[in-house]
Amino acid sequence: MNEIVDYTGLSHLEVSEETIETITPILNRAYPIDVADFIIDQTSLEDQLLVFNALTPEKSVLTFEYLSTRIQKIFIRELPEEKKIKLLNALSPDDRTALLEELPPFLVSILLKYLSPEERALSLSLLGYPKESVGRVMTPDYISIKLDWTVQEVLDYIRKKGHDSETLNVIYAVDEKGVLVDDFRIREFLLNPLDTKVEKLSDHKFIGLLVTASIENAILIFRKYARTALPVIDSDGMLLGIVTVDDIMALSVEEDTEDIQKIGGVAALSEPYIDTPFFSLMKKRAGWLIILFVGELLTASVMGHYEEEISQAVVLALFLPLIISSGGNSGSQASTLIIRALALGEISIKNWWIIMKREIFSGLFLGGILGLMGFIRVSLWGMIFLSYGEHWLLIAITVSLSLIGVVLWGTISGAMFPLILQRCGVDPATSSAPFVATLVDVTGLIIFFNIALYVLKGTLL
Amino acid sequence: MNEIVDYTGLSHLEVSEETIETITPILNRAYPIDVADFIIDQTSLEDQLLVFNALTPEKSVLTFEYLSTRIQKIFIRELPEEKKIKLLNALSPDDRTALLEELPPFLVSILLKYLSPEERALSLSLLGYPKESVGRVMTPDYISIKLDWTVQEVLDYIRKKGHDSETLNVIYAVDEKGVLVDDFRIREFLLNPLDTKVEKLSDHKFIGLLVTASIENAILIFRKYARTALPVIDSDGMLLGIVTVDDIMALSVEEDTEDIQKIGGVAALSEPYIDTPFFSLMKKRAGWLIILFVGELLTASVMGHYEEEISQAVVLALFLPLIISSGGNSGSQASTLIIRALALGEISIKNWWIIMKREIFSGLFLGGILGLMGFIRVSLWGMIFLSYGEHWLLIAITVSLSLIGVVLWGTISGAMFPLILQRCGVDPATSSAPFVATLVDVTGLIIFFNIALYVLKGTLL
Repeated sequence: MNEIVDYTGLSHLEVSEETIETITPILNRAYPIDVADFIIDQTSLEDQLLVFNALTPEKSVLTFEYLSTRIQKIFIRELPEEKKIKLLNALSPDDRTALLEELPPFLVSILLKYLSPEERALSLSLLGYPKESVGRVMTPDYISIKLDWTVQEVLDYIRKKGHDSETLNVIYAVDEKGVLVDDFRIREFLLNPLDTKVEKLSDHKFIGLLVTASIENAILIFRKYARTALPVIDSDGMLLGIVTVDDIMALSVEEDTEDIQKIGGVAALSEPYIDTPFFSLMKKRAGWLIILFVGELLTASVMGHYEEEISQAVVLALFLPLIISSGGNSGSQASTLIIRALALGEISIKNWWIIMKREIFSGLFLGGILGLMGFIRVSLWGMIFLSYGEHWLLIAITVSLSLIGVVLWGTISGAMFPLILQRCGVDPATSSAPFVATLVDVTGLIIFFNIALYVLKGTLL
Repeated sequence: MNEIVDYTGLSHLEVSEETIETITPILNRAYPIDVADFIIDQTSLEDQLLVFNALTPEKSVLTFEYLSTRIQKIFIRELPEEKKIKLLNALSPDDRTALLEELPPFLVSILLKYLSPEERALSLSLLGYPKESVGRVMTPDYISIKLDWTVQEVLDYIRKKGHDSETLNVIYAVDEKGVLVDDFRIREFLLNPLDTKVEKLSDHKFIGLLVTASIENAILIFRKYARTALPVIDSDGMLLGIVTVDDIMALSVEEDTEDIQKIGGVAALSEPYIDTPFFSLMKKRAGWLIILFVGELLTASVMGHYEEEISQAVVLALFLPLIISSGGNSGSQASTLIIRALALGEISIKNWWIIMKREIFSGLFLGGILGLMGFIRVSLWGMIFLSYGEHWLLIAITVSLSLIGVVLWGTISGAMFPLILQRCGVDPATSSAPFVATLVDVTGLIIFFNIALYVLKGTLL
């Protein structure tokens, strides 16, 4: 991190009862997120609380928002009553919702009592929206104006009422019923003459998020329209709140992490890898490994079915790993491409036939290449080292036809599986590389042995 | 996309010489990115140019920035001279750099002639910074102020000079030498009394990006500090430009897509899946598939080495796919977790020993679970169906010990490989799930057969 200029080097500070007074001014000058990192890095809860309690009230609130929910939960239990009340009331509504969501219901009801009536109503209403919906991450702290104001009036209003607003980068105009009618970047008011009517600056169009829209959808819209904030409205068009780009960026990183972990065959972790306790990590990994293992057990059954053929032509066994893994690899490629394209909104289920056609050609093309390479490898070894007996040509044909078949099958199923999952309302990223590989392993064996039975009938089998 | 409110439904518009006059006003009212999408969706270049040329000059510049570089290149060739000049000069410097980078050098030198002297100097200086560095994506259009001004002076200055600035959300203060001394959110000037001195609002600290810093690094810093823009400085602290969050968000999505595609065993695509021409797509996929195939060919050689053992105990072959795929799956999990944690800056190479210890325990734990399941499966089938002859217990022991060994080995190599790649200056995401699986397949076979030789010596072997 040496590329950050003016980076406050907190890492060398020693925390103890004796030093705390010396280091507090340094911490109070640092960025809240860096202070939060510093607290997280302390090894004992005592030191963590020591640092936190030494901060100025303002700094402690700002810092608290950056702590992990796990530490926030502990602090909420350990802090003195009055500090608790101050903290909870000062948290921004979206962060408070995130914290309350994580707590057991009985603790939530106790904490809600600490809130001022207005803040309590706010938290309850945010908690009322479905999980993973825009309603859960919006904040009601925004500036709304009227179209018949002048630029001067807008600026005066901001100066008076803007202190609690989460962002002043975008200002919203509503009508007398509270229905959103337009959005303005702050530059409109900074660059236009003070006596200009807001009406004159209005293009009467805006991009808004429905309060019930999914966060995934909100991320796609933020990416597309490159805004620093978007308004949240209900089905009647009433302005309920705003979502800011920093929250969306954090959520978007989370979604991508989730997708990546699922593609790798791990249930999504809720905390960073290094902070996840060992047994939580094992739970996330063992689940999928066991499912894949049970699926893979089918290969033993399928193989058992062909045991006689294997004992007649042991040479077949030599190419097993090669063939099934080629199917798995081509399947992983296809599924990963499709999962990501779905997540970015580049394709949707209704494109399935275009994708299918494309992947059939891809499978034939890629399978053809690998089949040819396999044919050459087996033929060369067969001719030069006499590795595979007199029937090496037939074996070469079996291997190369199997490769074409398995790669084609892997490609098609890898591409279609995410689409099928999406159709069934399941996250397409669930059709991870290992999952597709397992699916293709089992079916790949059947393809391989049936081609072998057909090609080698009367000679080896 | 039915969740976007007021979404302009352009998709039903028909483009032709006759209709263009009717639809132009609709297009001129739409968001530039939607017009760009509309142009991209046209099937012929004629229609695309027809639409583009019908737009107002202002709209055409805004729309041009959202077209893919491929279409931009074609347009730059096809457009009339004067439109070309207007477009190039009006493009924002960072977008122009992105376009010029894609063009062959001879075309760049021709195009640079069209630019006004100032714009040309700008483009040349942006092109001078290393690829993938902050210098390539910064824009020099920002507002800089002095600390001895008042809030009123700042607002007056913005009103006069702010029109070209890419963002007014953040304002930068420099000293008389042009060295950056502080950054201010616009809210400071909107909320504080007009006669306040800027000096009084200053905390004399800021987060800046070095012009030579990598884009990856910039993304991590944006995520951490949740800013809408960050200043770019040289090693002397001189303010050179700014980077805005929307550019960073787009780059961050690109980086994640690249990582995901690499994890899936595909070379990163430079365009969306659906827009990538068939043979480019094949090139990206065939490369890795062939490398993996060549690696996997080693399994055939390893198996050849144990051919005699297999013919003596065909039953061993039955468990081959099960065992090697379990190693592959646990390896994919570990590598994916580590790759993502590295990308998010949660871990670094210096944590390797902590990770190693963690993954040794993980491997033993997960291998133990699968080993136990394998033992039960083989024993049950051995006892009930008499599937594996009289030595079923020895086979059960072989399978379960092999599972423990292979899963442990898969986990350790999956976790260490990304770290080793990072150490060698290679993108860790290259150690994709398929790559680790292939590595573990080959070594897994050796583990399996050696355990079998040891356990079954004197009975089956």
